[in-house]
Amino acid sequence: MATIKDVANLAGLSVATVSRAMNGTGYVSEDARKKITYAINKLDYSPNEVARSLFQKKSKLVGLLLPDISNPFFPMVAKGVEDFLQKKGYQVILGNIQEDNEKANEYLRAFEQNNVAGILSAVEHKSKNHSDIPTVILDRIDEDVEYGVYSDDTQGGRLAAEAILKGQPHNIVVIAGPESVTRARDRLMSVEQTLKMAKVSYALIQSNSFLLEDAKETATLLFDRYPQVDSIIAPSDTHAITILQEAYHRSYQVPQALQVIGYDDVPISKLVVPRLTTIHQPAYKVGFKGAEMLYALMNNEHIERKKIILPVHLEVRETLRSGGE
Amino acid sequence: MATIKDVANLAGLSVATVSRAMNGTGYVSEDARKKITYAINKLDYSPNEVARSLFQKKSKLVGLLLPDISNPFFPMVAKGVEDFLQKKGYQVILGNIQEDNEKANEYLRAFEQNNVAGILSAVEHKSKNHSDIPTVILDRIDEDVEYGVYSDDTQGGRLAAEAILKGQPHNIVVIAGPESVTRARDRLMSVEQTLKMAKVSYALIQSNSFLLEDAKETATLLFDRYPQVDSIIAPSDTHAITILQEAYHRSYQVPQALQVIGYDDVPISKLVVPRLTTIHQPAYKVGFKGAEMLYALMNNEHIERKKIILPVHLEVRETLRSGGE
Repeated sequence: MATIKDVANLAGLSVATVSRAMNGTGYVSEDARKKITYAINKLDYSPNEVARSLFQKKSKLVGLLLPDISNPFFPMVAKGVEDFLQKKGYQVILGNIQEDNEKANEYLRAFEQNNVAGILSAVEHKSKNHSDIPTVILDRIDEDVEYGVYSDDTQGGRLAAEAILKGQPHNIVVIAGPESVTRARDRLMSVEQTLKMAKVSYALIQSNSFLLEDAKETATLLFDRYPQVDSIIAPSDTHAITILQEAYHRSYQVPQALQVIGYDDVPISKLVVPRLTTIHQPAYKVGFKGAEMLYALMNNEHIERKKIILPVHLEVRETLRSGGE
Repeated sequence: MATIKDVANLAGLSVATVSRAMNGTGYVSEDARKKITYAINKLDYSPNEVARSLFQKKSKLVGLLLPDISNPFFPMVAKGVEDFLQKKGYQVILGNIQEDNEKANEYLRAFEQNNVAGILSAVEHKSKNHSDIPTVILDRIDEDVEYGVYSDDTQGGRLAAEAILKGQPHNIVVIAGPESVTRARDRLMSVEQTLKMAKVSYALIQSNSFLLEDAKETATLLFDRYPQVDSIIAPSDTHAITILQEAYHRSYQVPQALQVIGYDDVPISKLVVPRLTTIHQPAYKVGFKGAEMLYALMNNEHIERKKIILPVHLEVRETLRSGGE
């Protein structure tokens, strides 16, 4: 009976290459793959091993689950993911769930069917479906997943509230991020704590999601309910930019009569008028570092920190009375 | 020697299912796949067929090549693509080239290695690498690819120029899109033709790309070189929004002293102040229709129209003197 050595000899390749091809544990060129197939056929090499290894072949694919690709924050995360993985020879399967959790489960099943080597998820899902596939959570917190990269919400919430406090606020409205997002809750807690410590009162409005349509609804509601508002702490740049527009149409002067702070620092926040002061989250770095962690995980490398929390900073532009300094 | 019937009998499945599994021509559950693998091993079924069919297995993957995922136009195209393909059980591999053509070739190779069933490309690449993989071009024109979905540039260029003409322009500056993009050239030709027919003169500025940083540079150059400008026809919303900001900082009143028209109608164009008048391109529909065409192509269905040109329209908002009507 033929052995792996015979296959390697006939194919004119090393045993290591043939073994890699059959176990799917490393890169093998298409040309080598063809030679190996030919040799396997020619020699009638044990089908058991071949069939099994081929079925088990690990792909060079990573599944990426995003809550909403039309929110400009997530394309930046995706860019970081792609930049790291492409260099390592991995490809990214895109799963955009448009904040629909049913879709998250469908994608996770599809990732499994495609035999992905790992999953990067910016969605909080409680599903255990994929428990044997290495997974890193990006920009979210998921109790069920050990590994994650996100940025510092306690710091971010504090910085946003402190910046608003410097502008002599009399009527603050805080918009809470969606309740389903753990990190939005952490950030809100930090905002509230900072305002309470300063003994400053505020009103609270709950938002439903980070989707554009929902942000517009929240902005309208806010001005209808609190026309006296002079300071707004928004849970995302999408919310803040929507508010700037609503404020313009209702003739509020920004920042003299109304100061606004965003969260995220998406590219467009630099382009609106006035330019949006916001908390900068390192979206690209979250993606890049997350991919790096996943790569280590997929290759059974030692991982020193299972949760990486990246610092944020205040990006001072034109929508705060104090300037923010 | 064992036959496919023996494998089917032992697996408790139909010959058709076993054949599907081995040729990769249809859906086979993970459970059935395991039973088949077991039967193949048990019976020592001809390795030649197994190895060959496994290597040839068509994936349920489609490669999507995008020029720049941080340009909000393309996430909308991607959304359309995904919405169609997910329903059909296909997954999308993301290839974001960041306007770097070298990267396009790397991605095309990676798509091939992953044995994608088809390619959707929003990049003009002259590479023939993937000539045997069904391909549809999205939002671009590529002479080498028979199938494509994009929107009507002749109509779009004309509509933009006509809208600007209604605002009594005295100093028009037209920004030409990147020279490498065929469609930008077609659009420019239509703008120029419309202005010439109206016997109105204009200045022309060449832009290098649709990237944000390049757009900022172009905006600065434009105002430095043509401080008397009172009308600008931009090749993208990114360009137009960058111009609105530069205009604000240089104290031009929009639209009274300076009217601006964009192109694309990305979500953010509704949110800037003043709200941007622009030519609406159906980005989502380009993605959705392109995926539909690719699906027909992958399944050897008859395709009536190989090029689908979708209509555009003027989206009237607040940056034109005439209102645009």
